[in-house]
Amino acid sequence: MKPVTLKEIAEQLNISVTTVSKALKDYPDVSKKTRGLVRELAKTLNYKPNTFAVNLRTKESKTIGLIIPVIVHHFFSNVIKGIISQAEKKGYLVIILQSNESYELEKKQIDLLLSQRVDGIIISLANETADFNHLNEVISQEKPLVMFDKIAKIVKCSKIIIDDRKAAYLATQHLIDKGCKRVAHFRGALLPQNSIDRFLGYKKALLDNNLPYDPSLVYICECGDMSFEEGKKNAIQLLKDHNDVDGIFINTDLVAIGAMTEFNKQGIKIPDDISIVGFSNWFMSSVISPTLTTINQPGFKMGKTAFKQLYKEIKAVKNKKTIAPKIITLETELIERESSKK
Amino acid sequence: MKPVTLKEIAEQLNISVTTVSKALKDYPDVSKKTRGLVRELAKTLNYKPNTFAVNLRTKESKTIGLIIPVIVHHFFSNVIKGIISQAEKKGYLVIILQSNESYELEKKQIDLLLSQRVDGIIISLANETADFNHLNEVISQEKPLVMFDKIAKIVKCSKIIIDDRKAAYLATQHLIDKGCKRVAHFRGALLPQNSIDRFLGYKKALLDNNLPYDPSLVYICECGDMSFEEGKKNAIQLLKDHNDVDGIFINTDLVAIGAMTEFNKQGIKIPDDISIVGFSNWFMSSVISPTLTTINQPGFKMGKTAFKQLYKEIKAVKNKKTIAPKIITLETELIERESSKK
Repeated sequence: MKPVTLKEIAEQLNISVTTVSKALKDYPDVSKKTRGLVRELAKTLNYKPNTFAVNLRTKESKTIGLIIPVIVHHFFSNVIKGIISQAEKKGYLVIILQSNESYELEKKQIDLLLSQRVDGIIISLANETADFNHLNEVISQEKPLVMFDKIAKIVKCSKIIIDDRKAAYLATQHLIDKGCKRVAHFRGALLPQNSIDRFLGYKKALLDNNLPYDPSLVYICECGDMSFEEGKKNAIQLLKDHNDVDGIFINTDLVAIGAMTEFNKQGIKIPDDISIVGFSNWFMSSVISPTLTTINQPGFKMGKTAFKQLYKEIKAVKNKKTIAPKIITLETELIERESSKK
Repeated sequence: MKPVTLKEIAEQLNISVTTVSKALKDYPDVSKKTRGLVRELAKTLNYKPNTFAVNLRTKESKTIGLIIPVIVHHFFSNVIKGIISQAEKKGYLVIILQSNESYELEKKQIDLLLSQRVDGIIISLANETADFNHLNEVISQEKPLVMFDKIAKIVKCSKIIIDDRKAAYLATQHLIDKGCKRVAHFRGALLPQNSIDRFLGYKKALLDNNLPYDPSLVYICECGDMSFEEGKKNAIQLLKDHNDVDGIFINTDLVAIGAMTEFNKQGIKIPDDISIVGFSNWFMSSVISPTLTTINQPGFKMGKTAFKQLYKEIKAVKNKKTIAPKIITLETELIERESSKK
């Protein structure tokens, strides 16, 4: 038996949906007679109130939307956990959508969340996203929006980030301090800001140490799903192109582990032949052999912080206040392990 | 500027929401005059049609809901990929919710999806779920429902499963064939059917080979999030309790890898001292050292199959047909690697 809707009750009594809804909630501005008729019909038809309908009075749905490029990824997974943990404390459900690095899909998903009347949206942008109208639409509808990790500088909303340049500089400096002279870089895709910033941090560390920047030492990883395989592929290519590389800063641990698998296979010793520093501190980085030096990326904390900021903005909208967008930068640190110990 | 709703247009013109909606879609059963008034007001107020509103004519929203216990898990991640890949082919968006093994959350999430008028729901049950009224509610509303992996036998809907008993039997038989005489089992939580079935397969293999079943060799892993840590913990406990165990069948690879990390740390040789078989064939199982023998669990295929079945049922409902629920059992196989080679 299909669920009875407010529309159906309204049609049967020849009144508006709004009146039906108000009558069921016992609003005084609906006549007693109408309230009685509505309740009786609702009971006869076995009407079940829609728990998640946007509450007419509070205008809240107590749901938020989360759009991320790739769900199944150790960093994003920790962010999801952080968001969900905070959301649950405040009684919010989290609707998760995966954009798969596709701008088109991301746009559709923004539309979906707006039509579902979520109270706010948290997003990490798809690699492909270079146009931001769909995000500005969210803001123009006064819907709270918080970005994290892959952000767009130009969109005026709150952002939770790390200082990617500083972290990459730290990683590269560590390799140089360990005696590396020819340091390669496996970078991320070309568009995302964090990928650009990590590359710039790597480059600056070389130049500050009077080492030449050589573009042929930079390999691109589109990442997302294929990270492990791309790590192997880039490792194979690097060994074909160069025989003097003694250190690599790799933009994410899963890629690094793919690369290390290939190096192990080809008998390249880590760290003696090539030292490696990854990024994000996936738990498997402390399990594999040799263990992987990496930059700790506080994913869970990023998720918690993103939700907390979104919640503040949801409350502000509800109380008809405005609060200025905030940029929150979380700390990172280098975790030294076997892959860079010389 | 908040978006204009159909309700607001209806109120201004003192007609029903249904009439407004029909007028905007140019339904002939609405008078030309009313259609004109509605369109003009919509234009003045800059009304944007809700792309995802349930289409009045087709009664479709082109969205489906997916509820899983834990998103960040190598098996479920492959299932998600399988579902999304098929859904995209048919133009459906997938709303993902994580129940976190909580029955209460799972119930709320079913309510949410029903209120959001998704066209169908795919679900793998939370460990805690022992009551199925919320699922029967979905079925009584004639909403297509497909279960996978963690299913409830008693709920009358389609299910995509593997033969867990047969797979566990195969895994245990393999250890016995390799010469193991005291085979332990790290099992899953007590309620889920697949956990029960894997335990029963393990037990049967022992008895069929005239080996005694010893309950003290069975360790429980609540799994979900803490799989790796629980693997380590159970390994520590097993070594305290027994010094003669020579084989372990472990219910999921991540737990197995946790256990192996502990054994490596304590100088226990794998497979020479203890042989290990895992379950699910996580990609890291072929990366760690020693590589892990496991049962291949076709996650991606399970996701594809789940969506395909759901889609059939969505089409049937749309065409006012009924199709009987189907139970689809996918094949598994043992992948032999270093952790069980003697």
